[in-house]
Order: sequence, then C-alpha cells, then structure tokens
Amino acid sequence: MSIFHPSRCPLSAGSVRASWAALAVSLAAVVSPFPAQADTIPPAPAFAQVPGVYRQVIGDLQVTALFDGVAFLPASNLKAIAAATTDAWLNAAYVPRSAKGIQTAVNAYLVRTGGQLVLVDAGTASCFGPSLGQVLSNLKAAEVRPEDVHDVLLTHAHPDHMCGLLTADGKMAYPNATIWLSADDAAYWLSTDSRDQAPQALRGLFDMARHAAAPYQAAGRFKTFQAGDALPAGVEALPSPGHTPGHTSWLFHGGPDATLLVWGDIVHYHAVQFRRPQAAFEYDSNRQRAVASRKRLLAQVADEGWWVAGAHLPFPGIGHVRHEAGGYRWVPAEFGPTSAP
Amino acid sequence: MSIFHPSRCPLSAGSVRASWAALAVSLAAVVSPFPAQADTIPPAPAFAQVPGVYRQVIGDLQVTALFDGVAFLPASNLKAIAAATTDAWLNAAYVPRSAKGIQTAVNAYLVRTGGQLVLVDAGTASCFGPSLGQVLSNLKAAEVRPEDVHDVLLTHAHPDHMCGLLTADGKMAYPNATIWLSADDAAYWLSTDSRDQAPQALRGLFDMARHAAAPYQAAGRFKTFQAGDALPAGVEALPSPGHTPGHTSWLFHGGPDATLLVWGDIVHYHAVQFRRPQAAFEYDSNRQRAVASRKRLLAQVADEGWWVAGAHLPFPGIGHVRHEAGGYRWVPAEFGPTSAP
Repeated sequence: MSIFHPSRCPLSAGSVRASWAALAVSLAAVVSPFPAQADTIPPAPAFAQVPGVYRQVIGDLQVTALFDGVAFLPASNLKAIAAATTDAWLNAAYVPRSAKGIQTAVNAYLVRTGGQLVLVDAGTASCFGPSLGQVLSNLKAAEVRPEDVHDVLLTHAHPDHMCGLLTADGKMAYPNATIWLSADDAAYWLSTDSRDQAPQALRGLFDMARHAAAPYQAAGRFKTFQAGDALPAGVEALPSPGHTPGHTSWLFHGGPDATLLVWGDIVHYHAVQFRRPQAAFEYDSNRQRAVASRKRLLAQVADEGWWVAGAHLPFPGIGHVRHEAGGYRWVPAEFGPTSAP
Repeated sequence: MSIFHPSRCPLSAGSVRASWAALAVSLAAVVSPFPAQADTIPPAPAFAQVPGVYRQVIGDLQVTALFDGVAFLPASNLKAIAAATTDAWLNAAYVPRSAKGIQTAVNAYLVRTGGQLVLVDAGTASCFGPSLGQVLSNLKAAEVRPEDVHDVLLTHAHPDHMCGLLTADGKMAYPNATIWLSADDAAYWLSTDSRDQAPQALRGLFDMARHAAAPYQAAGRFKTFQAGDALPAGVEALPSPGHTPGHTSWLFHGGPDATLLVWGDIVHYHAVQFRRPQAAFEYDSNRQRAVASRKRLLAQVADEGWWVAGAHLPFPGIGHVRHEAGGYRWVPAEFGPTSAP
C-alpha cells in the first residue's frame, strides 16, 4: 500500500520545502513586486517582466517556449571542474548570481506537430516556491487552452518537470492529455520501494512524482514507454540517461533543416558545461552516464545542425550548438517574426 | 525655402521606397500571417510572435527594450573582410538569412532614470515598409503612454531611428517630449544644402529626417547639443562618429556596477563585427572614423564591464561585451524577473 495518498493527504508545503532545501536550491521568491521609486513624475508603473512566452517556427513545427521561472543552483554543485574555473567562467558569461546561487531558467516547450499539441515537460507548479510555477499561466498568456494539449512528454520525473501536471488544487492541469514517461524513470521515481530506500532528504522528490502522476494513472492516461515503442505524433525518444535513470530527449521532425531536439536536462550550467561537458552535476543519478549522454548529444546536435531546446538554458532556450575550442558553444535563436526571413 | 513641406506634401511611399531600395534593404513584409495548417484538430491559432518588449533593471535604471522589427542587410555591405569569412561566420552564428539579406533587428530603448522617462531612438514608423515600425505599438504594449516620455535622445538622424518620432498621420508621437540630436548630425541631415549635394538615391534620407523633426522644431522642442552641453536626466553623450557625422552613444548612470551605454549603430553585423571590429559597413558616412569609434567603445565597455544596449543587436539587444581571441564576444542578458537574483 502506498504510504502517500494524494487525494487525501496532499503534500505539505513543509515536506516539499525540506526536500528542496536538501538540494540547496533557494525557495525565496524572486518575483517580488518592484519597489516603488521615490520620484513621482510620472508615477512609476509596476515594472514586472513580460510573460515568458516565445514562438519559433522550425519547418512544419510551431514551437512555443514557456518560462516556468528561475531556480538558484550553487556553483559548488558542479563537479569534476576546479571551483576557480567555474567562478571565472560564470563571471565571464555575466550569469546573474547572488548568495542564493546561480540564476537558472526552467523552461517547458509546446510543439504543434502533425495536427497535435504536444507539451514537453510541465514545470514546477507550487513544488519549489514562488520563483517558479509559471508554465500554466504562460500557456494561457500564449492563448492555448490546457484542454487542447494532446500529449505531455516528460524528459524525466523530477519535480520541476512534472509537478506542473497538476493545478493548484491538485487536479489534472491537462485534462485530455496522455502523459508519457520512460519505463526506467517510472520504475525508479514512482516506486515506493525506491523512495523508502532513498536518503531521507530526497524522499520528497519521489512523493512529488507519484502525486503528479496519480490522477492521470487513475484515468488510464499515464503511459510508460521503452525503446522502440510507438510514440505520439511521430516524435522520437532518444535515451539520454544519467541525470535520471530513464532521462529522455525528444526529437521532432519538421522537415529539411528542421529537426528539433528538446533535450531536457543535458545542460544545467550553460556557462560551464558547453565549454567543458565533463563537468558533472551533484544531483545526477549517475554522473558518469550523465556526462556520457551530454558528450554524445552535444556532438550530435553540433554535427547535424539540429535545433535544440533546453529546459535549463536561458529562456527561451531555443537555438543551436556549435563546436568551439575543443568544446561547444550555445548559439541562441534571434528574436524575430515567426515567418521566414 | 525648403523644397519639402511636411504638412502639405507628406513623403510619398514611392520616394521613400526608392531611397531605401538604393540602400539595398528589402521592403518586403516579414510579418505576414502564418499560413494555416492542413490539420484542424485543434484549429491552429494565429502563430504571430509575442510583442517585442523586454524589461531589465540596471541598478537605479528601469530599462525597457522596444522592438521595431527587422531589416534585411546584404552580406556584401560588409567591407574590409573577405566575403568567405563573412559567410562562414554568419553560418556559424545561425543568423537568419534569405535572398532578402541578413535579418537585422532594429531596437529602441526606454529608460526611467531620475524620475524621467527617456527614450533612445524612435524606430522606423512607416518609412521602410511593414517589417518595421513597431516601437510605438510595443511602447503601448508595455503600458507606457507616449505623452509621458520626457525626452527622446537620438543616436543619429537615420530614418530607422528618427521616423518613429511621428505617428502614422504625421503628428508628434511624443507630444510632450523634447528631442535631442547632436549638432553635427543636425547640421548635415537637416540641411537642404547637404541634401541637394547628396547622390540622388540618398536624398530621401534627408527628407525623412527633416520631416520627422519639423513638428518638434515648430513647437520649440527640438534641441541640438555639442560636447559639454547639459543634457536631460544626467545622461552623458559619448561622441561615436563615423556611421554618421555626429553619431552619439548615450551613457546612463544607475549606480555601482550599473552603467549602461545605449550605443546606437556601433555594430550592425553582430556575427562579424564583434570578432573583427575593423569590418566596416557600406553606408557608414566615414568608414575609418566608424571603425575607430567601434574599436574604442568595444574596448571601453569590455574593460569597464558596462551594460550595453544596441540598436541592431538581436532583440532585446541588452547585455555585455567581453574580450575574446583578439576580438570581442557579445554576451546577451538572461531573461528573468526584474528583481535582483
């Protein structure tokens, strides 16, 4: 029997926060109202950021990047690289940082392909505090109805990709969607055995994953897949394990020169891991496999000239990768109209 | 007597287009409606780009980047660099291009400083066709009233910076603003003598500048300045001549680590001119002086760590510059909340 019943004992904010605190990612709000200025001519309006929505046409694909917000990752979570190098490269890239950590975007991607609306990852909802959780509101700002989303493809089962499957009151945020998660991630993250064997500080992550999956499982619309299974809308699952056991990158085919890889968590620290792919992340399930997946996909997208969308690249996180100086370089897309130049 | 009377004989679309065609910049619309897809489940909504508005807090400054649209510049307008190098660097940077040319952003910047709203440059309005002219609509999308703009600081008197001073019906778009233009640019671009001595194909540019200035001059709110003159809101004018005789970059002081240079047309081809600042632009008034200004300002902003906002850098065009491999590299700001990380 599950020790956790989503419908009867929703996750307490306290337990969620304790788990995330264990990952040393700040919970403090970052979207606080901008302080009013002393001057009053004319009165300063609220100076909040614009909605995190960006549109990109890639061949036959219509891609909408949806900003979930920002997390703060400690520089010390980067492994297999000297701290002084990390520090110098973060400074050279002018990455916003503070005592809370390195500002790190969380993005999800909606792709219209073959007549279907497919969402890759769902954001954080309220799992990690008020600096995150904007995917659903940004989807609405993009004038897309959640009930029109046909499938949600998860790259992995971490809370910043999966908690957003639910609304604030615990209901299915995408009431008509089928959710797809790799069998390997499902076997690990949705298992009470795995949860009970995990360190106490990490158990909340398992609880959040099962909580997010539950209503879809009850409705018969939570599916797991293995290599070779047929997947929705002609999308291909590229296994990219390491960050989690069944981490998956999603390959969309939009025609000639229009291949898009929505790669999930292949890069967390863009200022460092493009230059040095062997730099690992503290919370990779298996660092060696994560590094191998990163090296393989970076080479592939650079060699093939594929478009890339990355969950933790600076929003909108859409662009290309090129070889540079023995490593790689991120080349963000240029803001422009959605029609061809 | 002027041969051009804005109030009685507004510039014909034909004359404007002929001039711009001479500059080999395409007039074709790029914001055409996205073609409807064959699929109908669910019906594809219009897939237009989001409004070109981005907000950045820099110390005490509230900066709003306003997208005017895109122009198309031929690669052949780059001088003092081998065509094959230009081509390779454009490809490596995945710059959107087509037979029309290289897609090039046009940006303006609104800065709230010292209790005043100051606009740097005003966009193209209808001078160069429907792919441009969005500054005023994006200002309204940013919920700023044009009548609250206190000053407009022009970097130079070219139409893509100055035509937007007027509304579609030829009235002052910023009815309470004072316009500031360097004395050197005013002496050249607002002069009928200069106009009459210019090649026929370029005369429309002079006409457009005088047309845009006229109602403000009539209202006594068009001012020229020289080095050392007092300027609004504590802003400093840094002379950066060459692209035009009196081209000016505007320096805003927002406190410690919060200096912003809104540099105007220091770089037109970001994929090339950061790496090789000596590459010149066909339509610089004086290429040698333009190259000298670019080299000087690039060194200054990189050495000082100033924030930069550039009229023709990919929108929002806000970021930093760093030294790299004997040249420079553009480091765009990361999308995020307007509060400190």
